Amino acid sequence: MSYPFPTLTAEEAAELIQHEQNIGFSGFTPAGAAKAVPTAIAQKAIREHEAGRDFKVGVLTGASTGASLDGELAKANAVKFRTPYQSNPDMRKSINAGETRFFDMHLSQLQQHVRYGFLGNIDFAVVEAADVAADGKVLLTSSVGASPTYLNQADKVIIELNSYHPRQLLGFHDIYEPCDPPHRQPIPICNAEDRIGSQRVWVDPKKIVGVVETNLPDEIGGFTPTSDITQKIGENVAEFLASEMAAGRVPETFLPIQSGVGNVANAVLGAMGAHPDIPVFQLYTEVIQDSVIAGMKDGNIGFASGSSLTVSPDVLQEVYANLEEFQGKLLLRPQEISNNPEIARRLGIISINTALETDIFGNVNSTHVLGQKMMNGIGGSGDFTRNAYISIFTCPSTAKGGAISAIAPLCSHMDHSEHSVQVLITEQGVADLRGKSPEERAHSIINNCAAPEYKGLLNKYYNTAKSGHTRQSLDSAFSFHKAFMETGNMQDAII
Amino acid sequence: MSYPFPTLTAEEAAELIQHEQNIGFSGFTPAGAAKAVPTAIAQKAIREHEAGRDFKVGVLTGASTGASLDGELAKANAVKFRTPYQSNPDMRKSINAGETRFFDMHLSQLQQHVRYGFLGNIDFAVVEAADVAADGKVLLTSSVGASPTYLNQADKVIIELNSYHPRQLLGFHDIYEPCDPPHRQPIPICNAEDRIGSQRVWVDPKKIVGVVETNLPDEIGGFTPTSDITQKIGENVAEFLASEMAAGRVPETFLPIQSGVGNVANAVLGAMGAHPDIPVFQLYTEVIQDSVIAGMKDGNIGFASGSSLTVSPDVLQEVYANLEEFQGKLLLRPQEISNNPEIARRLGIISINTALETDIFGNVNSTHVLGQKMMNGIGGSGDFTRNAYISIFTCPSTAKGGAISAIAPLCSHMDHSEHSVQVLITEQGVADLRGKSPEERAHSIINNCAAPEYKGLLNKYYNTAKSGHTRQSLDSAFSFHKAFMETGNMQDAII
Repeated sequence: MSYPFPTLTAEEAAELIQHEQNIGFSGFTPAGAAKAVPTAIAQKAIREHEAGRDFKVGVLTGASTGASLDGELAKANAVKFRTPYQSNPDMRKSINAGETRFFDMHLSQLQQHVRYGFLGNIDFAVVEAADVAADGKVLLTSSVGASPTYLNQADKVIIELNSYHPRQLLGFHDIYEPCDPPHRQPIPICNAEDRIGSQRVWVDPKKIVGVVETNLPDEIGGFTPTSDITQKIGENVAEFLASEMAAGRVPETFLPIQSGVGNVANAVLGAMGAHPDIPVFQLYTEVIQDSVIAGMKDGNIGFASGSSLTVSPDVLQEVYANLEEFQGKLLLRPQEISNNPEIARRLGIISINTALETDIFGNVNSTHVLGQKMMNGIGGSGDFTRNAYISIFTCPSTAKGGAISAIAPLCSHMDHSEHSVQVLITEQGVADLRGKSPEERAHSIINNCAAPEYKGLLNKYYNTAKSGHTRQSLDSAFSFHKAFMETGNMQDAII
Repeated sequence: MSYPFPTLTAEEAAELIQHEQNIGFSGFTPAGAAKAVPTAIAQKAIREHEAGRDFKVGVLTGASTGASLDGELAKANAVKFRTPYQSNPDMRKSINAGETRFFDMHLSQLQQHVRYGFLGNIDFAVVEAADVAADGKVLLTSSVGASPTYLNQADKVIIELNSYHPRQLLGFHDIYEPCDPPHRQPIPICNAEDRIGSQRVWVDPKKIVGVVETNLPDEIGGFTPTSDITQKIGENVAEFLASEMAAGRVPETFLPIQSGVGNVANAVLGAMGAHPDIPVFQLYTEVIQDSVIAGMKDGNIGFASGSSLTVSPDVLQEVYANLEEFQGKLLLRPQEISNNPEIARRLGIISINTALETDIFGNVNSTHVLGQKMMNGIGGSGDFTRNAYISIFTCPSTAKGGAISAIAPLCSHMDHSEHSVQVLITEQGVADLRGKSPEERAHSIINNCAAPEYKGLLNKYYNTAKSGHTRQSLDSAFSFHKAFMETGNMQDAII
């Protein structure tokens, strides 16, 4: 590797960054996240704090990141502002303690909000790359996220040149940044696999103040195996989609799938692949997980477009060892393209996301435990759900051994309203909410999706309110949550 | 007028329609709504009920309609199912009494959900027209709404040929219906005034079973004049937008405005027109109201694209008397185009909608009084808010002489989440929520937007919860609403 930019240690790079500055880091999930420099910034923060000086920075990323970024910076209490998403235990703790101001955004909107100036000046971009050329062409690694925008908008750029990622990744990215209104044009993607941009990001080489050479793996843990519950949810999703095809409501050629992150999502993709009536399908999604690679190997998944390749270390090694085989099957895009409402609606994606909590009217809480504590953030679930051909939310009907019902009288926090949530699927069954009034929704969700031990309580709640389009009773709307806070079991709810 | 279709009386047309059938009516607001046939269907329903027979139909429209449609059918208890929106007192009563099942939809999604088969078969389209030709070309009247889709999808078509609307309306409509996934292409609108379709809707003439000739005005009432409160809200909006331009966050050429329906919206457009720093602007909106025509006459508004021309009878007469002057300044589109997320985001519209209720975290209730009773529906507010360049909600800070605070601890129903609501404006001031954490949002909304008599209570509520990203207290979240239900005054809330 040769480049005409100063080679810096991570510590030297961190020294360039000052208190109160905003940094746009690469990373959409831990895939492709900056690692060495944020850790060095955290160490600098600790030194500064020990010396009695304030030191906190604004941290903008693509989405969640790894322990070296969110974890180290949060533990060092070095983050004044965080957006758009996180999933690190230490960062979560800092946010819920009020130490870090967190702005929880629709991921598709991040890049344009940076360009519009809504999130302040970007002083530094710190972006992981597999290669950087003298003319400023940057080859990204296992994610794209918001890196093109940070590279373009930042005053100064630090590259983490990570030799863990092969330069043969050239061709796996499709970099496109739209003009802003009033000059924006249609984004010309009409099929999940359409390429519309360039293979590398171009950044003004004069802005590159240093290159930090590393060799570090993405900090991605393995996923827990499919359980009976998640397997059943997956089968229910697959069976529902097959029945929609049979009814003629989903085209025979099928539609691109968007699938959320986590174990339920892995089980859903596995079950879809195993279903005899579902043809080979494509993904137009944000995060490409292990199950996508498995589906490709099994011949069930033909193509996947996403913003990150977030797979277990051994799966990533397998992909990297067989890059030619995956060329033309995997494509990484900026998050404003992977999650774009225009594209989601045009392609007619089927969105499948996991709910933290739902209520009997079909509202969904994706973010807040008991309405107070931030879990991760809304992520891309809103981008896809609102614009899907069919929007599906999945969740196990209960948690903590039955002490929590995922279906409450009223969500303690709402991220997706009844207007956007079309189908709810648990291991118990399927509630198809399309065209249904609140009364019909409530019956469908309670009868088909709720756990048996909660059906009585939910029906009792519904029957408490005697009138109104939506039979909400403000007195006992949060009775499940209050019972859990008092006794540790929602079954003790008093309605 | 000559056409090779049977001329029917409204009563004869109503006789064609059977119990349990679904009817797609024209009408996006009372503008262009079918009038004679729905009234005759209501009369048929009364006769059938008196004879001891069931008679209820499914009523699909573009949005709200007039008294002859929603009013008469609701009073006759003739509606089994209603979608996507309504604002008629009798229909509202029927919905809240559980007599009519109401499915409250994002208006941009209606047409594709009909085509996808999610809302059942459309047995009849009953569409008001200014002209119908032998080859099946239909010239619509003062709205487009979902009429192209109903005409295309219905098994049979009844035309209400209303001579109240001049045939010189030819050229004021732009009819475009996208292909469905996987064949959909970009919708090629890049400027508010772009034309992409045809002037008339084509319907297979074999489906036209009859023409009912009428001469009936749209059932649109006058708007109440601007009050001190709405005037101040309008001025706050105008001043905020001017300051965004001055800060360089809104382009100097300005951006297209989407404006909701009602008196606040009229006041906002008036105040924007009067502001010296806001240039002549365009609207890309759903409903074109009186204030738009006034703005054009004053030279402040250059162009308006919408789905309906919903103006007072005297204003409509004025437009019709000067059609040549308004040709090229007014354009009516199908609601899936006027409200399209793809277009809203591409054009970078500034959305300005009215909230029924907000909370201190920036969530918005657009639909339900006290969480139970349906007011009108979400309409297009979600389509625009989610995809706007800047999304604004307005409302007076109080209602009923101060007994109701429009800003509650927690919305009793949620239609727009914190993730989509960027700016809240009351007569008290402006809360700019962009990039703000829940804590900052709460302070900004309470300090800038709440009425003075409620600031203490809202601050007390916020300080009740001591931890968490969002300091929600489920015990007193609905204390304002409960106080109102008990004493008639939210100021009696116990926190």
